[in-house]
Amino acid sequence: MNDEQFMKQALREAEKAFAAGEVPVGAVLVINDRVISRGYNQVELLNDPTAHAEMIALTAGFNFLGAKYLTDATLYVTVEPCLMCAGAIYWSKLQRIVWGAADPKNGHARMTGAHNPFHPKATISTGVLADEAAALLKSFFQSRR
Amino acid sequence: MNDEQFMKQALREAEKAFAAGEVPVGAVLVINDRVISRGYNQVELLNDPTAHAEMIALTAGFNFLGAKYLTDATLYVTVEPCLMCAGAIYWSKLQRIVWGAADPKNGHARMTGAHNPFHPKATISTGVLADEAAALLKSFFQSRR
Repeated sequence: MNDEQFMKQALREAEKAFAAGEVPVGAVLVINDRVISRGYNQVELLNDPTAHAEMIALTAGFNFLGAKYLTDATLYVTVEPCLMCAGAIYWSKLQRIVWGAADPKNGHARMTGAHNPFHPKATISTGVLADEAAALLKSFFQSRR
Repeated sequence: MNDEQFMKQALREAEKAFAAGEVPVGAVLVINDRVISRGYNQVELLNDPTAHAEMIALTAGFNFLGAKYLTDATLYVTVEPCLMCAGAIYWSKLQRIVWGAADPKNGHARMTGAHNPFHPKATISTGVLADEAAALLKSFFQSRR
């Protein structure tokens, strides 16, 4: 399986968020080409503004592994992680992070600038199926107007 | 009640973490001079590196209020919030944050620098019972050596 195939699974999670009236962001955690957890934005459902796709996928990942570090996992998330999620990814010791669309407003990069908020050994890939992720967000916000 | 009295309650939470073998950080959320939720670091207990005192107090606060914003609340936390917790505080729309000891290594300020990661309207107070919070951390890490 390649990055696009796993990102498609993250997009499927984002579509679940869309269908539930949530900002459509989705994430999957992968170890050895196997999806170990999934998450989509559940801020409205849970009445919790921290219930982002990444946080849910990470917590499910800790539970699945019975471990508090995800050193061997790759996180696929449809949109650039916010500051909170970037911090959570750091604490998880994730060493590979792949995201789709950039988020100039709420993405972490606006705040962290030149600093790398992730684990020093982490590798980052961006732009994977970015158009699909961005189109889903655009369609969601248009439908809300 | 003043800031020191609420910070003492946050320190009491930090002592619970210490007793449980967790890095001793504690937090309380206050609305109208009333503590609505409490939290202490439970990273080891929950096998979850995102289970910081602030995250636990925030989630309990959303549940208590049945609301996803904490606009009228003040968060007291014994140590400077990390990047993840700073992001969570932002999403919560908290407008007052009080912390004790600075955390030059893992505090958010090292990453965010001149940027304010909190809500633009939030007011920040620091250094409240900082010596007590720092002494608790020092004693914890010395006991671990």
